[in-house]
This record gives sequence, C-alpha cells and structure tokens, in this order.
Amino acid sequence: MQPIKVYADRRSQPSRAVIIFCRVNQIDFEEVTVDLFKSQHLTPQFRKINPLGQVPAIVDGRFKLFESHAILRYLASVFPGVADHWYPADLFTRAKIESILDWHHSNLRRGAATLVMHTALAPFLGLTTSPDAVKQAEKLLSQSLERIESVWLKGGAKFLLGSPQPSIADLSLVCEIMQLEILGDDVRDRFLGAHEKILVWMDNVKKATSPHFEEVHELLFQVKARMLSKAAAANQTSEPSTKHKIASKL
Amino acid sequence: MQPIKVYADRRSQPSRAVIIFCRVNQIDFEEVTVDLFKSQHLTPQFRKINPLGQVPAIVDGRFKLFESHAILRYLASVFPGVADHWYPADLFTRAKIESILDWHHSNLRRGAATLVMHTALAPFLGLTTSPDAVKQAEKLLSQSLERIESVWLKGGAKFLLGSPQPSIADLSLVCEIMQLEILGDDVRDRFLGAHEKILVWMDNVKKATSPHFEEVHELLFQVKARMLSKAAAANQTSEPSTKHKIASKL
Ligand SMILES: N[C@@H](CCC(=O)N[C@@H](CS)C(=O)NCC(=O)O)C(=O)O
Ligand SMILES: N[C@@H](CCC(=O)N[C@@H](CS)C(=O)NCC(=O)O)C(=O)O
Repeated sequence: MQPIKVYADRRSQPSRAVIIFCRVNQIDFEEVTVDLFKSQHLTPQFRKINPLGQVPAIVDGRFKLFESHAILRYLASVFPGVADHWYPADLFTRAKIESILDWHHSNLRRGAATLVMHTALAPFLGLTTSPDAVKQAEKLLSQSLERIESVWLKGGAKFLLGSPQPSIADLSLVCEIMQLEILGDDVRDRFLGAHEKILVWMDNVKKATSPHFEEVHELLFQVKARMLSKAAAANQTSEPSTKHKIASKL
Repeated sequence: MQPIKVYADRRSQPSRAVIIFCRVNQIDFEEVTVDLFKSQHLTPQFRKINPLGQVPAIVDGRFKLFESHAILRYLASVFPGVADHWYPADLFTRAKIESILDWHHSNLRRGAATLVMHTALAPFLGLTTSPDAVKQAEKLLSQSLERIESVWLKGGAKFLLGSPQPSIADLSLVCEIMQLEILGDDVRDRFLGAHEKILVWMDNVKKATSPHFEEVHELLFQVKARMLSKAAAANQTSEPSTKHKIASKL
C-alpha cells in the first residue's frame, strides 16, 4: 500500500491536528509542505488537490479530501489500527463528538483564527484590520473557552465529554487554542489564565500525543520567537519598511 | 417507543433542515417551538436541553443533542428507515459529504447568516451593524455560491457531488440559501440570479422533499411578506418609532 499524502503547513492549526493524528496512530503518510506564506496553496498544482486552495488536504490513492474534521473522521474509519476512542463507533458517543466538531467552526475557530489574523498576522500580510473585528473575535474566543469548560469539561474531566481518552475533537480544539501562542505570552495568558480546566485539559492532550504534539508544534514556537524578536527590533527603529521585510522572511 | 422531541424555530435554517429530514423520513417526532423572537432559547428550561441556548436541539429518550449536522448524522444512523443516500455508509462517499458539511460553517453559513443578521434583522433586533461586516458577508456569500457550483455541482449534477439522490449536505445548504428570501426578491436575485446551477439544484432538493419542503418554509414566506409590507408602510411615514413596533410584532 502506498502511504497517504498529507498536504499541510505546520503553522496552520488544522494541518497540525491531522499530522499529529497520523503520527500518533502510526498511519503511513508522507507530509507535503504547502507553504502558505509563499502562496503555494494558490498554485494550479495544489488546486488539483484542493480546488478551494486550503490546507490540510490528503490524497489516498486516487481519493482526495479536504477539511480537517472530514479527514480525521475518514482516517479513523479506514485505518483499522486507530483506537476506537478517537472516533467511537458507539452512535451516542460519536454524536456528542460530532456536536463539538460542528460547534467548533463558528465559535472557537472563528474567534481564535479571526483574532490571530487581525492582530498577529495582519501587519505581516498587509491586511487592513478593524478594531471592531478584533473586539468581536475576542468576545467570541472568551465565550467559547468558557463554554468548553462549563459544558464539555465539567467535573474533573480529563478529556472532553468526561472521556478517559482523547477523541478527534480534543485534538482539533487544542491545536486551535495553541495558535494563541503567536499572540505572545501576555495575550495568551489573558485568555487562558483564568481557565484552569482548559490548561489541564490541554496538558492532558499534549501528554496523550507526546512526543508528536511537541514536535509538530515546534515550528509554531519558532514563528513565535521570530515574530517577537523582529517586533522588538522594529520597535527600536523608525525605518518604515521594516514590516515588509519581516513579512517576506517569516 | 416515544417520539423524539425536536426543539426548533422554523425561521431558523438549521431548524428547518432537521424538521424536513424527520418528515421526509417518517421519523416519529414532536416539534417543540422555541420562539427566538420571544427569547425562549434563553430560558432556564431550554438551557437544560441545550446549555448553549441555540436551536435546533433534540431529545431522544434520555439522550440530548444539539448542532444540526450532528443531529442529521445521528438520525440517519439510528433510524433504520432512512435511505442510505442521505448519509451513505460507503466511507469515501460519506467523507466527501462530511467535507461539505464542515466547509459550510465558515463559508456559506457565515456569509449568508451574517448578511441576513446585519441587513434584514439588525433594524428589528436593535443591533448596530457595520457596512464593513455587510461587505465581507456579501463577498463570502458570493464566493461560497460560486464554489458550490464549480466544485460540487459541476457537470449536470442533480445533487451535490453528482449524486442522483440528495444527502444531508444538500438539505442543510439549501435551507441556508432559502434564508436569503427575507432579504427581498431583488437582493435574493442579485446573489442567485447568475447561478443557474444553484437554482436548478435548489429546485431538485425541493422536489425530492416535497411537500415537506414547502410546508416547513411557509413561515419564512410569511415573515418575508410581513417584513416587506411593514417596511413599505414605514417608508410612507416618518414616525421614528415604527421600527420598534415592527420588531415586537414580527
Ligand atoms: N475548516 C478548514 C479550515 C482550513 C483553513 O482555514 N486553512 C487555512 C490555514 S489554517 C488555509 O489554508 N488558508 C489559506 C486560504 O484560505 O487562502 C479545516 O478545518 O480544514
Ligand atoms: N451550527 C448550528 C447553528 C445554530 C444556530 O445558529 N441557531 C440559531 C438560529 S439559526 C440560534 O439558535 N440563535 C440564537 C442564539 O444564538 O442566541 C447548527 O447548525 O445547529
């Protein structure tokens, strides 16, 4: 059997979730980097893999698939080696996991990704941003974190829904929250500091998927370090073109 | 067996998708109206059904579930009478449907629901709205419609993915697009007029689920008629409080 191909950029949170999932479950795969900052997702070649031009996407033989949750469900279903807890066959447990996966898009993801885009990334990407969009994203992010805690992590839950083992929903949501790292420690702590249960849960997911979790997140921490040091340097100079130089090197 | 309970407001697009699905598939259910305009979704009683306070939600015996796509998957899986095409057992076909269901949230739904909220509903709900948010929503909606046509309806497809029968993705997406009705015929046509394939597909979904589709959408057309006539009346008077009167009667 040919290994599947995973088209990904490790700076993208759903890309990381798919890569970590493959590694933890010893799925034979080849990682193909699609560099978003070099616009490789917009090339005609990649459009043949995903016509919508987004990562992650996979190719399994002649079968192509995009959308990280659909990919995770598919991998959990076709690879017999994947333990049941990732995507339980029991219809009731599965339905509850689906509910979280669906909720994610318009809540945690929309809040976190919009915030990251409009604050950390906007200046590097040359995007115009609005204080209103930032305020709304912050509100949605805070509300989403509260809801994860009060609804899905209530009691002394180790993983979402009180499960003793992680599911694909744990992995997807935690990879999203990890993206807050690139906002810097202060901002990350402002959002996560008050959420003890979220912090414990994130640590549980990290441990359950170690060392893959840390390894796949290494690039994110490199980006973070580079952004912080360049931002500090930019603060010390008044050269107006600094921002563009940073963008091209990120 | 007790009928399942479906908590819904027919003015909500995911609510309609669930009700139509139950009726088409002869699932024994009781519809419990949660009137969003009377804030019944925010009552302590409804919070016991869905702690996040949104419709639709279902109760099946002691099992509670929210998020329309999770509900549709669950119903298709537990009721043996539901035909396979709604949520195919074949893993490849199913994965492609999951991909559309996941894509929906941050694209078609985000575009259409934000537009409806910031234009048709904002004045009635007393929300402040921004021209920027409207512009972004319009762009996302147009892009989403184009992508549905070029990716999932390419060729002479009767339903998404070239299927001869509808899936839960067809139903969810078409119910979302139907919401554009309350923007009035001109605006609806501005978005849909150029998309011949979308119009044909919507008609196919309507026919495949008739007469339930039309019956469940009746309330939406009543809302539309009421909004248009009140808006026309408001245009003829300069009384500043008209808008609030409309809101309270909607
Ligand atoms: N819902 C999708 C989101 C995919 C997504 O937003 N990917 C981003 C990176 S995190 C991307 O490819 N962006 C490039 C673009 O949209 O042009 C998933 O979970 O796979
Ligand atoms: N992704 C959810 C969306 C649910 C949703 O947005 N419901 C709206 C009505 S369309 C609602 O209950 N809004 C009330 C609120 O959010 O306060 C689904 O598909 O069920």
